[in-house]
Amino acid sequence: MKAVIVIGDGMADRQLKELNHLTPLEIAEPKNMDRVASLGVSGLLYALSPGVAPGSDVATLAILGYDPYKVYTGRGGLEAVGAGIELRDGDVAFRCDFATVNEELVVIDERAGRVREGIPELAAQIRDLRLKLASDVEIIFKQTLGFKGVLVLRGEGLSPNVSAHKPKLGLRADLIRPLDDSKEAKRTADILNEFIRASYSVLNDHPINQERRFRGKPPANVLIPWGSGTRPNLAPLQERYGLRGACVAAVSLIKGICRLSGMDVIDVPGATGEIDTDTMAKASAALEALKDHDLVLVHVEGPDEASHDGDLLGKISIIKKIDLMVGAILEKVDLEETCIVLLADHATPVKLKKHVADPTPITIAGLDMVRDGVSNYNERAAYRGGLGCIRGRHVMPILLNLLGRPMRFGA
Amino acid sequence: MKAVIVIGDGMADRQLKELNHLTPLEIAEPKNMDRVASLGVSGLLYALSPGVAPGSDVATLAILGYDPYKVYTGRGGLEAVGAGIELRDGDVAFRCDFATVNEELVVIDERAGRVREGIPELAAQIRDLRLKLASDVEIIFKQTLGFKGVLVLRGEGLSPNVSAHKPKLGLRADLIRPLDDSKEAKRTADILNEFIRASYSVLNDHPINQERRFRGKPPANVLIPWGSGTRPNLAPLQERYGLRGACVAAVSLIKGICRLSGMDVIDVPGATGEIDTDTMAKASAALEALKDHDLVLVHVEGPDEASHDGDLLGKISIIKKIDLMVGAILEKVDLEETCIVLLADHATPVKLKKHVADPTPITIAGLDMVRDGVSNYNERAAYRGGLGCIRGRHVMPILLNLLGRPMRFGA
Repeated sequence: MKAVIVIGDGMADRQLKELNHLTPLEIAEPKNMDRVASLGVSGLLYALSPGVAPGSDVATLAILGYDPYKVYTGRGGLEAVGAGIELRDGDVAFRCDFATVNEELVVIDERAGRVREGIPELAAQIRDLRLKLASDVEIIFKQTLGFKGVLVLRGEGLSPNVSAHKPKLGLRADLIRPLDDSKEAKRTADILNEFIRASYSVLNDHPINQERRFRGKPPANVLIPWGSGTRPNLAPLQERYGLRGACVAAVSLIKGICRLSGMDVIDVPGATGEIDTDTMAKASAALEALKDHDLVLVHVEGPDEASHDGDLLGKISIIKKIDLMVGAILEKVDLEETCIVLLADHATPVKLKKHVADPTPITIAGLDMVRDGVSNYNERAAYRGGLGCIRGRHVMPILLNLLGRPMRFGA
Repeated sequence: MKAVIVIGDGMADRQLKELNHLTPLEIAEPKNMDRVASLGVSGLLYALSPGVAPGSDVATLAILGYDPYKVYTGRGGLEAVGAGIELRDGDVAFRCDFATVNEELVVIDERAGRVREGIPELAAQIRDLRLKLASDVEIIFKQTLGFKGVLVLRGEGLSPNVSAHKPKLGLRADLIRPLDDSKEAKRTADILNEFIRASYSVLNDHPINQERRFRGKPPANVLIPWGSGTRPNLAPLQERYGLRGACVAAVSLIKGICRLSGMDVIDVPGATGEIDTDTMAKASAALEALKDHDLVLVHVEGPDEASHDGDLLGKISIIKKIDLMVGAILEKVDLEETCIVLLADHATPVKLKKHVADPTPITIAGLDMVRDGVSNYNERAAYRGGLGCIRGRHVMPILLNLLGRPMRFGA
């Protein structure tokens, strides 16, 4: 028995007046996801617990059976490992986004118009940065997908305990503060603020950005580090559950979690982490990975990105694409031999453009599980699911039971 | 208000192709169980938690309100107390089964064809065994039902920490190992292996077994101890809940748990612990016990035995017999005065022949509980139950509330 876990990031939503009080999942009518629901058992998932809006980092950790309250050391460490950086003890890592600021360094576009072109040239400028405050600190920057990248500070006397928040419209970028009284936190905050200002000074007038302005696009004129973290320690999935795992994901965060848990991370050409991602390429990669792995995690970032942009049509369109991906997987696997788990890690309502704590639909299909009669995969149908209301930490135990490897207690 | 808890051991299952995708409970159409469902509230039960396949020992402990993670000291202690042996501190107890091995002591029938005849004669041989390694250790063996028995080692310097596993086809019986470096564990493992070999030497050519061979039946030519344990300490039910309890069960394990919890254990002639058990005698015993007890636990082992044998028709037939037993109880009790709880402690799919972690159906009927409209007792109907998804540890609190003795907090 093998298993595929399909995660639509931020795919769950709320009912929308403009959709006649339906949700994006309901309006998308995802036939293949519905098929999974009708072949399996559905329910509601709280990745952490009722009322907690999770980041995708902690949600995914919980779904893979880790206790995020124990193992989570910040997003940056996961992102850096996902970007292929070998983190060392003492390194402080950040997610780091290209954004657009005005001359007062106030954010006017958090993603620089989701910039993609010219990024290698801009990134090259960053590699040559020399910071006054950090002559003894190695500055590692690596762009990952589009406007996204990671920043690692390597040296003595650094601390992850700084207020490096996600870029936010209307706020100055270089106002990172230490979160404790240590000189390490103070120093790290100072270095980060200098880094932000220095990035602005080398990026703002770069020809790539001049051309962007000329075309009416927001310039990628600053880099903003956020989500500080250090290297987390995850017990390998293979040791914990005896499963050989593979990960099919675009974004560094998920790649990082999976790499740290000992899974093979498969790079898929055409996987962009946005709504134009090639979900069929992901389906093929997942099916290929299933040949020599027990557990394949397929993560699609697009729904969350569309939601954060408030892009309702984009969200519906990526849900339809995920549905085709699920269909391609369903067509090739035998549910007698392979379980399929379909879930959203959290809800990101397009109206709110941020994560909320609503429960999300989950469906598990495979083998001769007693079916519950639910024949749709969406937020409303899940209310009637036989799984009831579960937590992220229950997903792996339930799956292991289906794979014929339940935990045991008693004789 | 009084209560009857009916436990069908391992009664839950999965949907089976050969049953047109129904489960044994669905195909059995248990009218009386369905009646209990229609009069009450149904739900799903995880004896421990999602993903954990429980033994009947820990499941029953949880259902009676004990925390198995705190009180469980192994199966053997429970079995020995159930068999009527007064366990002492330092005693190490085992479940101990007659089985069939070849001359290399490899198991070829884990239950010696469910042997029943001639057991007292065979057991007498064991009582006279003298072990070289255990001259200072008292060896107590007591047969309980059919191929089942218990073994207690009484003496100094023993340990329960040995790898005494359930007999398994194709494995040598005398390969018990110490599970720590202590000389007590080493000594106990050595004694057990000598016991197994010695049992073979006195049983293999015994006239009873010669006759079994002559009739084409597997000889009961070895005794295999498993499920080591010591005497557990259970706070009496009467003290905890103010309930006078009685137990109607065939198997020592359940008798032991109930005896340790201070319940009266009622011996029922005709209760065999197998699918030919006399469930109507159990119904009569339960009704009789209800006269002077507040809580009567009725346990039927048969469904689990049939499931471990992969005997689908046997499982359906014992479910039908349990249904008649439930009907006989229903007929005589007034639900205004007596609650009925109907549950399976765990699922044992006949296809897998082992315990799994699937949730099981539970129904609670009595008094003027708000009914949930579920009118069948089975795995699928339970998905729609008003109780939702509960844990074993919730059963007693829910029941106590119905009995008019809820726990209280606040003023």
